[in-house]
Amino acid sequence: MEVIHSIADLRSRISEYRRKNDGSVGFVPTMGYLHEGHASLLRKARSQSGLVVLSIFVNPLQFGPGEDFERYPRNTERDLEVAEAAGADLVFMPTVSEMYPTPTRTTVAVSGLTSRLCGASRPGHFDGVATVVSKLFHIVQPDQAFFGLKDAQQVAVIQQMVQDLNLPVEIVPCPTLREKDGLAMSSRNVYLSDEERKQALVLSQALDKAKEFVQSRPNFHAAELENLVTSHIASAPLAVIDYVEVLAFPSLEPFENSTHTDSIILALAVKFGKTRLIDNVILQLRK
Amino acid sequence: MEVIHSIADLRSRISEYRRKNDGSVGFVPTMGYLHEGHASLLRKARSQSGLVVLSIFVNPLQFGPGEDFERYPRNTERDLEVAEAAGADLVFMPTVSEMYPTPTRTTVAVSGLTSRLCGASRPGHFDGVATVVSKLFHIVQPDQAFFGLKDAQQVAVIQQMVQDLNLPVEIVPCPTLREKDGLAMSSRNVYLSDEERKQALVLSQALDKAKEFVQSRPNFHAAELENLVTSHIASAPLAVIDYVEVLAFPSLEPFENSTHTDSIILALAVKFGKTRLIDNVILQLRK
Repeated sequence: MEVIHSIADLRSRISEYRRKNDGSVGFVPTMGYLHEGHASLLRKARSQSGLVVLSIFVNPLQFGPGEDFERYPRNTERDLEVAEAAGADLVFMPTVSEMYPTPTRTTVAVSGLTSRLCGASRPGHFDGVATVVSKLFHIVQPDQAFFGLKDAQQVAVIQQMVQDLNLPVEIVPCPTLREKDGLAMSSRNVYLSDEERKQALVLSQALDKAKEFVQSRPNFHAAELENLVTSHIASAPLAVIDYVEVLAFPSLEPFENSTHTDSIILALAVKFGKTRLIDNVILQLRK
Repeated sequence: MEVIHSIADLRSRISEYRRKNDGSVGFVPTMGYLHEGHASLLRKARSQSGLVVLSIFVNPLQFGPGEDFERYPRNTERDLEVAEAAGADLVFMPTVSEMYPTPTRTTVAVSGLTSRLCGASRPGHFDGVATVVSKLFHIVQPDQAFFGLKDAQQVAVIQQMVQDLNLPVEIVPCPTLREKDGLAMSSRNVYLSDEERKQALVLSQALDKAKEFVQSRPNFHAAELENLVTSHIASAPLAVIDYVEVLAFPSLEPFENSTHTDSIILALAVKFGKTRLIDNVILQLRK
């Protein structure tokens, strides 16, 4: 495994690989502080690609004022161990000034999909995501890129961008990984106090309840599902709900009823203290 | 020379070329109705590239309401003759629905550079240009792309986009070609009546006067230059000035004086009847 800091070096290593090999290039873009969820993306990339490229870059563009850019957790040494164990070949770790040598004037914006959920709570967030992902795609030029479905809206936004801009890359969405007790894995879980960590279990519990509810009822209203989830989360005294929302998936359009869509997402964002957690479940509807 | 209508076919022809050859891919994106200016871009591409790709696509996204999208001149038969004579290998002529199969939700926007000149007169125009050029770059994946400097602001916007988004392509700006009497070549010249065509000569004459003025004076104010040009253009009774502006080049920042910049652009847009013409001259400043 090789650690690379400059764009020019990364490009020359990848084009060298392309010249000498027929295998595909698989890419896993991350913000580091790798957990088992990231490792599962790397293993998936390893199983499908000749060359596995991991990027670790905490992108300032996707953090709003007052968000956690400065204190976002970092642990390079452990990241490199996880990356190597999961099969990465190249780890790209650029500085902010390598990625943004001059203030960027160019923005890639995806409308519609970004007006709800985290797009509403975090204005500009998905512009920052789409812009940096398009930069990384231009640098790495991967055949496949692997993204975790915990960030389901991010996956939908990136798939829309790839389709609209004819980016020559296949997006591979991968399932959310969870701790044994159900909490979705996230680099931000490290922020939680013991008590917050305990109470945060209501999130996955609420999603399980929603799954059962939908399985037992062929017809239901989005509001019923949202109420069920909201009231379970509200049973945790430290939980402050940002949103609980049911939308059609992957369009992220409002969900009316099961005759108009085959698949829905129940997505939520909840704060415990200063820590904002997101989670979701994608449900196939019975017809 | 091969004419190709689908993205998939173009991609497979280009990747076939890449597999079998070491030469570079040169790309000339146009809206068709080719004139000698376009032919000069193709000849430049021919001289530098192993494979020369021309695209002809009148992009609805870069036309505003009331602009000339519907009546933009088209002549495929003559375009193909010009393309073949100038050395194109592949001509990509997609339909609007091939380029935009669903309404596009993704926009590439370049700020700053697009607030002045044509960006001010044609809101949204450069978003449409940046978006379609990024799509075409992703489809063709050229090594070099050739653009005419008559659209100097377009060149500056695309260079900024390429730099900000790390697009793996070199932009090659090429000089404006002119008719014998000085009128800058443009597909839109065909709109001009005989009388408008005659009076339109004031544009290149005014730019020549500006060039002489700058050569004779080491220090001058932007307003002097703008006034000189404006009053010459105003001598043509049919001319309606949209803008005459002096800016630093290629930043397109306001020009203060020659101690802050080495190079300026004097750019203009003038209407004759319904036809809006643009022209410019880029001037190196004496120190």
